[in-house]
Amino acid sequence: MAQPLRVGMVGYAFMGAAHSQAWRTVNHVYDLPSPVQMQVVSGRSAPAVAAAARRFGWSDHTTDWRTLLTRDDVDLIDICSPGDTHADIAIAALSAGKHVLCEKPLANSVDEARRMVAAAEAAKTSGVRAMCGFNYRRVPAVTLMRDLIAAGRLGTIRHVRACYLQDWIVDPEFPLVWRLRKEVAGSGALGDIGAHIVDLTQFVTGRLVTEVSALAETFVRSRPLPSASAGLSALSAGGVVERGEVTVDDAVLFLARLGDQVVATYEATRFATGRKNGLRVEINGSLGTLVFDVERMNELQFYDLDRPVEEQGFTRILVTEPSHPYMAAWWPPGHTIGYEHTFTHQAHDLVRAIAAGVDPTPSFADALQVQLVLDAVSRSAETSSWVTVESAIVDPVEERV
Amino acid sequence: MAQPLRVGMVGYAFMGAAHSQAWRTVNHVYDLPSPVQMQVVSGRSAPAVAAAARRFGWSDHTTDWRTLLTRDDVDLIDICSPGDTHADIAIAALSAGKHVLCEKPLANSVDEARRMVAAAEAAKTSGVRAMCGFNYRRVPAVTLMRDLIAAGRLGTIRHVRACYLQDWIVDPEFPLVWRLRKEVAGSGALGDIGAHIVDLTQFVTGRLVTEVSALAETFVRSRPLPSASAGLSALSAGGVVERGEVTVDDAVLFLARLGDQVVATYEATRFATGRKNGLRVEINGSLGTLVFDVERMNELQFYDLDRPVEEQGFTRILVTEPSHPYMAAWWPPGHTIGYEHTFTHQAHDLVRAIAAGVDPTPSFADALQVQLVLDAVSRSAETSSWVTVESAIVDPVEERV
Amino acid sequence: MAQPLRVGMVGYAFMGAAHSQAWRTVNHVYDLPSPVQMQVVSGRSAPAVAAAARRFGWSDHTTDWRTLLTRDDVDLIDICSPGDTHADIAIAALSAGKHVLCEKPLANSVDEARRMVAAAEAAKTSGVRAMCGFNYRRVPAVTLMRDLIAAGRLGTIRHVRACYLQDWIVDPEFPLVWRLRKEVAGSGALGDIGAHIVDLTQFVTGRLVTEVSALAETFVRSRPLPSASAGLSALSAGGVVERGEVTVDDAVLFLARLGDQVVATYEATRFATGRKNGLRVEINGSLGTLVFDVERMNELQFYDLDRPVEEQGFTRILVTEPSHPYMAAWWPPGHTIGYEHTFTHQAHDLVRAIAAGVDPTPSFADALQVQLVLDAVSRSAETSSWVTVESAIVDPVEERV
Amino acid sequence: MAQPLRVGMVGYAFMGAAHSQAWRTVNHVYDLPSPVQMQVVSGRSAPAVAAAARRFGWSDHTTDWRTLLTRDDVDLIDICSPGDTHADIAIAALSAGKHVLCEKPLANSVDEARRMVAAAEAAKTSGVRAMCGFNYRRVPAVTLMRDLIAAGRLGTIRHVRACYLQDWIVDPEFPLVWRLRKEVAGSGALGDIGAHIVDLTQFVTGRLVTEVSALAETFVRSRPLPSASAGLSALSAGGVVERGEVTVDDAVLFLARLGDQVVATYEATRFATGRKNGLRVEINGSLGTLVFDVERMNELQFYDLDRPVEEQGFTRILVTEPSHPYMAAWWPPGHTIGYEHTFTHQAHDLVRAIAAGVDPTPSFADALQVQLVLDAVSRSAETSSWVTVESAIVDPVEERV
Repeated sequence: MAQPLRVGMVGYAFMGAAHSQAWRTVNHVYDLPSPVQMQVVSGRSAPAVAAAARRFGWSDHTTDWRTLLTRDDVDLIDICSPGDTHADIAIAALSAGKHVLCEKPLANSVDEARRMVAAAEAAKTSGVRAMCGFNYRRVPAVTLMRDLIAAGRLGTIRHVRACYLQDWIVDPEFPLVWRLRKEVAGSGALGDIGAHIVDLTQFVTGRLVTEVSALAETFVRSRPLPSASAGLSALSAGGVVERGEVTVDDAVLFLARLGDQVVATYEATRFATGRKNGLRVEINGSLGTLVFDVERMNELQFYDLDRPVEEQGFTRILVTEPSHPYMAAWWPPGHTIGYEHTFTHQAHDLVRAIAAGVDPTPSFADALQVQLVLDAVSRSAETSSWVTVESAIVDPVEERV
Repeated sequence: MAQPLRVGMVGYAFMGAAHSQAWRTVNHVYDLPSPVQMQVVSGRSAPAVAAAARRFGWSDHTTDWRTLLTRDDVDLIDICSPGDTHADIAIAALSAGKHVLCEKPLANSVDEARRMVAAAEAAKTSGVRAMCGFNYRRVPAVTLMRDLIAAGRLGTIRHVRACYLQDWIVDPEFPLVWRLRKEVAGSGALGDIGAHIVDLTQFVTGRLVTEVSALAETFVRSRPLPSASAGLSALSAGGVVERGEVTVDDAVLFLARLGDQVVATYEATRFATGRKNGLRVEINGSLGTLVFDVERMNELQFYDLDRPVEEQGFTRILVTEPSHPYMAAWWPPGHTIGYEHTFTHQAHDLVRAIAAGVDPTPSFADALQVQLVLDAVSRSAETSSWVTVESAIVDPVEERV
Repeated sequence: MAQPLRVGMVGYAFMGAAHSQAWRTVNHVYDLPSPVQMQVVSGRSAPAVAAAARRFGWSDHTTDWRTLLTRDDVDLIDICSPGDTHADIAIAALSAGKHVLCEKPLANSVDEARRMVAAAEAAKTSGVRAMCGFNYRRVPAVTLMRDLIAAGRLGTIRHVRACYLQDWIVDPEFPLVWRLRKEVAGSGALGDIGAHIVDLTQFVTGRLVTEVSALAETFVRSRPLPSASAGLSALSAGGVVERGEVTVDDAVLFLARLGDQVVATYEATRFATGRKNGLRVEINGSLGTLVFDVERMNELQFYDLDRPVEEQGFTRILVTEPSHPYMAAWWPPGHTIGYEHTFTHQAHDLVRAIAAGVDPTPSFADALQVQLVLDAVSRSAETSSWVTVESAIVDPVEERV
Repeated sequence: MAQPLRVGMVGYAFMGAAHSQAWRTVNHVYDLPSPVQMQVVSGRSAPAVAAAARRFGWSDHTTDWRTLLTRDDVDLIDICSPGDTHADIAIAALSAGKHVLCEKPLANSVDEARRMVAAAEAAKTSGVRAMCGFNYRRVPAVTLMRDLIAAGRLGTIRHVRACYLQDWIVDPEFPLVWRLRKEVAGSGALGDIGAHIVDLTQFVTGRLVTEVSALAETFVRSRPLPSASAGLSALSAGGVVERGEVTVDDAVLFLARLGDQVVATYEATRFATGRKNGLRVEINGSLGTLVFDVERMNELQFYDLDRPVEEQGFTRILVTEPSHPYMAAWWPPGHTIGYEHTFTHQAHDLVRAIAAGVDPTPSFADALQVQLVLDAVSRSAETSSWVTVESAIVDPVEERV
């Protein structure tokens, strides 16, 4: 009988809910070598974490994530807490011999990320695995994009055009939540959503961002403080709304080069009115083009220059066929899946990698590479100059050569 | 402490998988008055039903659905088996005091459906509830459509344009599966997918189909027999593919009137090459238009004549806001949901109705009304004449008057 | 030096403006065997026709179309006046040895249409040509559609889904213009826009409509009279709006069969709120599907089953390549053309056919065939029964067999 | 009787054809204070310019543009020749008292553009007018975009996202035409199509680009020489294809700021496979968003935050209503227009401005401002640094303050 994989999760907000849904579902959709067990969830507030355990289906709960390190019934620690906690938890967990899944961005700084990579490298020698949760790699349409590019269907890549557009803080009275505070979140749109498009484009093209020229902007520089307790915004005693300083970027835009002769524009913003989750990527190559938009995540647009010219056009592929990545396990063609299953697919791949004794991807080193790009972007925006991105890993395409 | 609602499910194919995913998820997403327990699944093949129980997360399994009737630990019977089994199971279950959720179409004939309605009416007096599973009513965009129409935003309804387009049997060598045999499925595209658009349009407009003129066609009249064991098609001993007669419609098209002065076209087909799950509905009224396509189920198109003429147009509403139907429980705006959660929403509404002691919708009578339309369509196609639809329920709009 | 083709046009409203633009443009875009000369325009109101001649660029004008018959400087009569005038003018013109281009619908009745066909047949023997102006055949995307089907790319045709949706009379106070009066227009949506989708679908499929079951509706049965002079609506002396009866259909819907085993839905309406010029056609075949929408007339959607399944999808072909029909004469790829050039292409084809001494298409007989369908639809709607369409021409596909 | 406006045009290639179509059409669609007369066309090749005159409808032709300066029957000189000829012709024409319409980009260098502005300023004192032909300002949807922004419907502008994507030289064997040679064209994608998006975004937002960080790339550095005579590529005597150096950019990308706190990405490329004429602009403001794509030039997308949240979405406005800019003169709603009428509208506005004795827009100074942006972009790409854009005109929004 297969050994179960027993999970302890840290954090129970948006990401905690999404990961829980994935852990709960993955056993029932895929044939896994190890059944997943949702053992324990950790969070700072005792009543809240108890409620989360009940709601999300975790057998146990705790207010101290450190207890997970020594529990025999936890094989993997899933880190869904804010970025400033990632390094401590991940390094402790790996040292304790627990596999780790860590939400993106890997860390709030390159230094932290480097220490996490070192910890992952050390742990690997004893078969302990580490993975960073760039969930959008596991959208079937994105995986298909990667497969088509890897098969040479776009020829030589020329252009990358990536943006991640949201609008949830357009209202200047939206409160100063933790994602708008640098000491907790590390950065604003850059680390939260910019990280996704950096990872996604590096993943699908197999090329690394090598230099950047960036511009960052904070449009609304102060916001109402959220109340200490629970509400979204707070009135002071006298009825005056207290405001605090926004210390992260609202938007960041950058030009980039990937490898040799690929040129790119990137943009991450929380001020694109009407764009709710507008992660869009277009890749132009000498033989074709691929376009993806996560608001229509079951679709991929493919322009194939290898067709008769009269019949060329953007083909809207509905990525719901059994032969599409991850889709054999789901519903009949045309019956779409939702955002949450990017996490289900991620869980699937992680469980199989652990069982097979191989490293899951993206590795912590892959995530450090993203962090190095984010760091270069920050420095470029501060200095108004082009900044070269340090390389932590080998460019996958160059490696092949 | 709330009483759990313990479910026994019959059938474990496509619909069984979808319902299981819903039962497994609904507790963890919504605050339910009764926690759902996945007690037992029933199916004819012992090894298959055992595997299904394991895969889908049912505590127990059986090869005899009749055992569910007498089990104390089953409160609700969820019927996911083919249409020819619905009447027997539902009537027995209701008589045994079990709540019933029955997949659509309610039955393979009007007579069966009438007997089921009678059973539901009888059971209601002792607080036993019955619901028919027209899951597309619970697409948030469809519920929003209904709400906008009920609020008068379209004015007087003029046109209904509904089609349900699939293409899974375009290949003439696709085998003669049960859905292509009248004695099991009752009809072809008509009952399988035509039923959905009849129900959906009656639901959103609040009007009933009153007369129809139909045309039915079977494009491919014989197909390879599926092998008795497992494969999709069968070779006879001599290597010759044995073929059987297709006894249902491949496509059905009909004109209709709903109530007074609403005119409609309906089309259900399995031969619309490239349309995988093309359920599309457009409703034109004197003040606006609504358009829905289940291949993009998180979107609703709304044309509102009550805008300045220079700014009028079809607005693509991304139905992912917390204030949209069912969506507060899910992810942030722009993070889409998939097909399966039509069943999660259905489960949610059913559980709450049972707890509240009210009748869930659609009722068996609502489903009978759909069956009466399907029956009129069949007779119209056979006789090449207009057929009036008998009315089992009162037209909701006329009732309001 | 090439002989010019000298045109006399009857009518100067919407169609007159569109034809004028085409005649004015065609010489300057295409290499024509005969240069077109815009000789004379005819209309009932002297000042209005004089203004129209000036505005549209006609050398001369008259209030009596009969004078065109005897003018030596008129080679072709272009009939853009309402349907009730077509037969008289066309027959007289052909008898006078003038080529004729007649706007659709060919006539207001089958009888008129038959007489026009007879006149065209008679004139043909002396080299006089007749063409009916179904301009949408000359949308490049529609011609491409026809070409792809003729090349077998859709395999066996199964489904036709055609609608022509407009909304210009949704407001019940829109006045009773001539298009709403049967004695002038012949019918309402049926002849005005329904004729287009009948012709277009017969053209692209190469099959004829053979039987129909129809439903017609007049939603708004009386409307304000337009003032005698010029305004759109009229107040009587006492300030009361005088109303008249609408004597044509607002909407007509019908089921049809084309040839053998092709099934179809058709719908023409002026009450589809938000649809301004929604001519849409979808053709499903055993090997693929084509979709066209005139609101995006430079685009054609093509689903080709002959692609790897993972790459199948609807390809949006931007029909602006030099190798696309009619497009070599226009702008570089991606630079779109507008509605008016359906008439420019029509003029081009007509001029070349006359110069080459061959019959242009659609012929009057083709247009009579459309008229026979419209007539069958009318009778079907009146009698609520299926009506067989008489055949004036041979089904082009059957002819090929 | 109104004085005619007699036009002499220089150049007869793509732009000459488009302008000719506009001059030929504008009289017949709009009520103009002066009828336009197509007097003479000038070009270097005698047989070619004679053929062009015939084809396009010019009364006369010449091989020497200087003869236009002294002709009494020429009131306006329309410059459609390559960029290296603009300054000489425009300055000479203005000095000769001829109105000038000059195709964009205004010149190949800032110095030339400055001299042209000076000439235009000088000529203005004697009532001679100058206009630069940024035709995309006259797409009705673009004008509507400008109007909505000017009316405050987007609130405070935050983001500009502009790209102009083409793909006509993706094939490395496409020949070295004049547009790929710096000495004739000035620059590559930058001046040809980048100029359009700079002008368009400055026009619709009413803000000027103030600083840029750019990256330019030439993907294919040598190409076959076109044959001296006419063919597209040339074989040398020995059958070897002679190649020449590409001296312009294939693609240019830049970040920018407009006025205060508006951030922008711009991209112009000829290597976006599948994008034929992909001019796309998105503007995000605090109250809404507008999106335009010239491949669907009759449409404008508008997201209006001032709607109930459940009904918000991108509204596809079909810009074909009589109350939309320029559209009252064309066809009924839903009947689209094509690319060429951007020139017709431009001609209309120019003729009316001349008749009214006011300056047409965009002025040469507006076009110089675009040139200054292009120049800053070039210098930024060369120096890999941010470059401030010099200001030739006052920021329209700041001017209003």
